[in-house]
Amino acid sequence: MSIKPELLGGFRDMLPTEAIIQQRMIDKVRRVYESFGFVPLETPCMEDRAVLTGNEPDFNKSIFEARITKGKEDSNVTDADWEQNYALRFDLTVPLARVVSAYPNLPKPFKRYQIGKVWRGERPQAGRYREFFQFDFDTIGSNSIMADVEVIQVMVATMRELGVEDFQVRFNTRKVLNGLAEVVGCGDNAKELFRIIDKMDKIGMDGVKAELQRQPDNSFDENALALSDQQTAMVMDFLTIGRSDPENMLDKLSAILGDGSVSGKEGVEELQQIVAALTALGIPRRFWQLDLNVARGLDYYTGPVFETYLTKLPDLGSVFSGGRFDGLTNRFSPGSNIAGVGASVGIDRLIVGMQQLGLVTNEESLTDILVTIFSPEMASDSLKLAEELRSRGKCVELYLGDDRTLRAQVAYAAKKGIPFVVIAGPEEVSAGVVKLKTMATRAQDTLTKDELYSRLS
Amino acid sequence: MSIKPELLGGFRDMLPTEAIIQQRMIDKVRRVYESFGFVPLETPCMEDRAVLTGNEPDFNKSIFEARITKGKEDSNVTDADWEQNYALRFDLTVPLARVVSAYPNLPKPFKRYQIGKVWRGERPQAGRYREFFQFDFDTIGSNSIMADVEVIQVMVATMRELGVEDFQVRFNTRKVLNGLAEVVGCGDNAKELFRIIDKMDKIGMDGVKAELQRQPDNSFDENALALSDQQTAMVMDFLTIGRSDPENMLDKLSAILGDGSVSGKEGVEELQQIVAALTALGIPRRFWQLDLNVARGLDYYTGPVFETYLTKLPDLGSVFSGGRFDGLTNRFSPGSNIAGVGASVGIDRLIVGMQQLGLVTNEESLTDILVTIFSPEMASDSLKLAEELRSRGKCVELYLGDDRTLRAQVAYAAKKGIPFVVIAGPEEVSAGVVKLKTMATRAQDTLTKDELYSRLS
Repeated sequence: MSIKPELLGGFRDMLPTEAIIQQRMIDKVRRVYESFGFVPLETPCMEDRAVLTGNEPDFNKSIFEARITKGKEDSNVTDADWEQNYALRFDLTVPLARVVSAYPNLPKPFKRYQIGKVWRGERPQAGRYREFFQFDFDTIGSNSIMADVEVIQVMVATMRELGVEDFQVRFNTRKVLNGLAEVVGCGDNAKELFRIIDKMDKIGMDGVKAELQRQPDNSFDENALALSDQQTAMVMDFLTIGRSDPENMLDKLSAILGDGSVSGKEGVEELQQIVAALTALGIPRRFWQLDLNVARGLDYYTGPVFETYLTKLPDLGSVFSGGRFDGLTNRFSPGSNIAGVGASVGIDRLIVGMQQLGLVTNEESLTDILVTIFSPEMASDSLKLAEELRSRGKCVELYLGDDRTLRAQVAYAAKKGIPFVVIAGPEEVSAGVVKLKTMATRAQDTLTKDELYSRLS
Repeated sequence: MSIKPELLGGFRDMLPTEAIIQQRMIDKVRRVYESFGFVPLETPCMEDRAVLTGNEPDFNKSIFEARITKGKEDSNVTDADWEQNYALRFDLTVPLARVVSAYPNLPKPFKRYQIGKVWRGERPQAGRYREFFQFDFDTIGSNSIMADVEVIQVMVATMRELGVEDFQVRFNTRKVLNGLAEVVGCGDNAKELFRIIDKMDKIGMDGVKAELQRQPDNSFDENALALSDQQTAMVMDFLTIGRSDPENMLDKLSAILGDGSVSGKEGVEELQQIVAALTALGIPRRFWQLDLNVARGLDYYTGPVFETYLTKLPDLGSVFSGGRFDGLTNRFSPGSNIAGVGASVGIDRLIVGMQQLGLVTNEESLTDILVTIFSPEMASDSLKLAEELRSRGKCVELYLGDDRTLRAQVAYAAKKGIPFVVIAGPEEVSAGVVKLKTMATRAQDTLTKDELYSRLS
């Protein structure tokens, strides 16, 4: 009859040690987002399925749908409820688009951040969950390149606020990639070109070359680019630009793109402006890098794209990514073409990375002081003492365990990593003093209350 | 073809003004919880249906179940996924019970708080949603009455931290009510007695009397108490104790309960200990009240119960409620009888109440200063100035709107309630000064950067 206290596959608990780490990170990230003028927004976890999927026949994400089940003798669930297509959000971007469309009077630019859980029906794997946090910030309704520059500023400020110094923000713009596809002459199949470029790190130059020149397997193989040697050479030139001094990179890029593409020209200008702004701001060069191979998987980016890597953990992947996506609200208001740019910090992955780099401390407790109870008759003395310490801004626990020996009370503090223990027995109370035990040194001092307060402050 | 940007019925958005209020409240509540040694816990929003409902055949809540839908050409969803009974949590207490059972090595007492959304399939009504936040704290594994006292301390500290002074915590214990049922002689049907007592405020003394003495309608009417005049008189005596001085109330209560009930005797002792502790702590009497009519709907409470009212808004209902529930984990570990006591603050209702009392300020923005951009060529000067102000701890927005007139920039600050606007045109930059516009007074001063920093700090 008893039920197993088990989690569903692909879901997880965060016990206090991990939840404390996450909470601290969220607080810091939030402070940075707010310092740039972003304000919080809350939307439901559940939306109409059509809102989330855009009713696209090709929608190819596995998502969670929901349905209300009727309780026993319950009349709260109506027939209309059964016709609703409840679904759980898979990101925070689509709900943002809905909000921007639903409340047209929101002053623009609308700068919001949102933290919340999202759900995906992916196959559970090590470190991959079906439920996870996203923590996005976005500027809606600004075509200014300064909004793109700000994304990089926020990324740099966030990493530094978190105490990470070995990181690099890499950026590019989709316009340059579109320009390349145009001048190469495969604009109709640009996505396939980007897909191959994105594999560069995995398959190398030769692999890329082979894929670019691959002939169709049969007449239905629309993906094969079948580039000529000359076309292939242009892509190779593009890829060999590599990562170096941005001015130098932009010169080489301009030479490849020539005047053959409006998009390409705009892209080069965007990158020049971003580089100029970052230089003017004096953001150390080690924190940012123009990287023409950054393509970002998502189709909806239309301008600059951004990724953030922990330089000591190159295999971890990007921990903070984003880009410009003009046209976000077109699903709800066709032709509205509202400009948007933003990014999302990968809290979970960042925690994994920071743990590997030894940048986080595990804590079982946030308590500064444990106040022990000497005996039941003296409980109210301890109760008052704890409250006095609390009123001085400390996090204070009164010992509430059922094993009331002093030994058990001190062991509790040790197990939880509480740094100080206060003991006040009948002798101490009558003498107007307390004993303070410092757990790290095991030193025990007898102090007046004033001495105690000043010692702990 | 376009999709309506609409919410599902019973769900809502919190636009920034409201989200800012909620965020601030959550921060304050969290600080209080932490000051008493509670630490965060995170559990999934989705659990196995059996975990949530206990497989009870009489489970009578309408809940949301979930199911993964397969994406196009998607192999992430397995047959096992289709057999899973995914369901969305309806509170944070059942997940806590699962955690306590699943991780037996968590040091006890385990003091955790958790904030998160929960879902209920209730009929949507004004101010009633199908998705809402809960913000619970609980102490697990402590039989000490001091853990119950601490609940009242946390409630009082939270309300005061939120700036609410007109509130009262009312408490009672289920043991006294069980004792009353015993001495009256309707222990088998105690729930019906409590139900009638709970209606006191609505139906008055005469109504209660009539219900207590009601005879069965037919032989299947098991609820009718059919109390004798003598039995009814005991209940009436109990109800006329009213709300007065706690010592006086406890004397009257002891006289009614006599020695006829062990539970009643324990209950009186519990209440005496709580009153003594609150008195020793010196918590002002206006903030707490022993109230023998507080019954708390939920069946699982076994000891003290707590409710918090805004005294100027008696009809709002309790904004912060809880109690002791020993046996929480029995669903997972029969007979484990682990002790638990805690409470949950009703953030949504509290916001409504505080808004009615004028205790919250609406803000559209958290930004301290808007830095304008005089012309595209001067953007990087403004960019740098904004960053300098930010490095001094300010929340600073660089103006990113597409309408670049100064008029539009100042209007943006006005619309968002940003208190200061900084203007740096070519004259100012060459003279090494800036203009500071104070929006409240419309005063405009020309300042050196150092003057600006000291003015804003």
